[in-house]
Amino acid sequence: MSARALSVLKEVDTVAGYTTYIDLIRDLVADKNIIATAMKKEVDRVKAAIDTALFGKSCAIVSSGDPGIYAMAGLALEICKERQIPVFSPQKDRSNEHALRVEVVPGIPALSSGASLLGAPLTHDFACISLSDLLTPWKIIENRIECAVKADFVMVIFNPKSKKRDWQLRKTMEIALKYRDKNTPVGIVKNAMRKSQDVRVVSLSELADADVDMLTTVFIGSTQSARYRDFMYTPRGYSGKYTMD
Amino acid sequence: MSARALSVLKEVDTVAGYTTYIDLIRDLVADKNIIATAMKKEVDRVKAAIDTALFGKSCAIVSSGDPGIYAMAGLALEICKERQIPVFSPQKDRSNEHALRVEVVPGIPALSSGASLLGAPLTHDFACISLSDLLTPWKIIENRIECAVKADFVMVIFNPKSKKRDWQLRKTMEIALKYRDKNTPVGIVKNAMRKSQDVRVVSLSELADADVDMLTTVFIGSTQSARYRDFMYTPRGYSGKYTMD
Repeated sequence: MSARALSVLKEVDTVAGYTTYIDLIRDLVADKNIIATAMKKEVDRVKAAIDTALFGKSCAIVSSGDPGIYAMAGLALEICKERQIPVFSPQKDRSNEHALRVEVVPGIPALSSGASLLGAPLTHDFACISLSDLLTPWKIIENRIECAVKADFVMVIFNPKSKKRDWQLRKTMEIALKYRDKNTPVGIVKNAMRKSQDVRVVSLSELADADVDMLTTVFIGSTQSARYRDFMYTPRGYSGKYTMD
Repeated sequence: MSARALSVLKEVDTVAGYTTYIDLIRDLVADKNIIATAMKKEVDRVKAAIDTALFGKSCAIVSSGDPGIYAMAGLALEICKERQIPVFSPQKDRSNEHALRVEVVPGIPALSSGASLLGAPLTHDFACISLSDLLTPWKIIENRIECAVKADFVMVIFNPKSKKRDWQLRKTMEIALKYRDKNTPVGIVKNAMRKSQDVRVVSLSELADADVDMLTTVFIGSTQSARYRDFMYTPRGYSGKYTMD
């Protein structure tokens, strides 16, 4: 946790978050009001947090990783806009307006922690894609995969599989195999930085059969990505463009 | 700085980095050997760091942001592979082998800190592209921009302009305008988290004339990205797919 995140948690009256994340910081927030809800209740939770703030109590919404990447920061702003609640950024001096001060505190995103465990797969251009078709039609997701493969991006895949959703990762592999070698390195990071953490590098052709779930992040290498011993990395430039001698 | 980064800095014998970054942590590393070099000397610096470690002194290579995103972690592994230096990951138990232990410590990347200052532009799929054609041919970069626009990714643009390189950002805008509305929000973050920090949201058609340099990160919105008062954000899903009532 960053120093800023820690000081915000100490300052606020109320903390809102998914129960599992609240449990991780239970000691820090012992004397706070807590808005803890189960998964899939994000909208209710964020609305309750905004209502709390509107009634004059400062409230922190907590996420794991970075709150701005596939997380709650966007939803909070969306709801404020929907309800036409006046908001302002801490960088602007609007302290004499009747408006909510909204600060987004950045964190270390799963793409960074996952990449660090694999070595350095993201030292050149990359794209992040969620395979969850709950809020985005599969046609849009499939087009993104196709475009990302054609662009030779390293691809960071979130939500690769769930109990009810099991074929999208195989489809992703099939699209990638149209343009990339079957031996392209693929990094698989399960439960990053937690007790049951599992980190593996496999070949692209093995991806569909790999053991993944909702808490797994998958890094599909570009044509330049390479393996070396325990690690996967992507060079900074296209070979021959610079010399290491 | 994360707790892990701080403890690594305390443990090591030697610290290597770009002079500007070393200056930022001068107090923390007062009693260490320092390998500080100017910009564009990355390869020399990383080789010196590896040599130090091979001679039995632990060495930390420091970057700003995250060392795994457009930074030094990949180069270190590249050089180890090139020189066939045996390396191992801290997650593997190889303490009795004659090999270098290489740990990548993740940080908060510029894409996260920049996004947090703008609001939440990255809460859905996105792509990161560097416009520097020093190590990557422009044809590859241009294809990436075209693909990213077609995929409707939010685009995070690094190295948008330098003293010698001034036309790539205009070209990027022109490609984006083929598929996206001229009023698409574009976030511009200069010197994030530093004294001279400057954060603005402009329209896509104004991008080419915006004041940017090598320390600026540009966030080009997708067709779904929106502005609300001081902020720019991207909704989690495609409209109508979920309700906020």
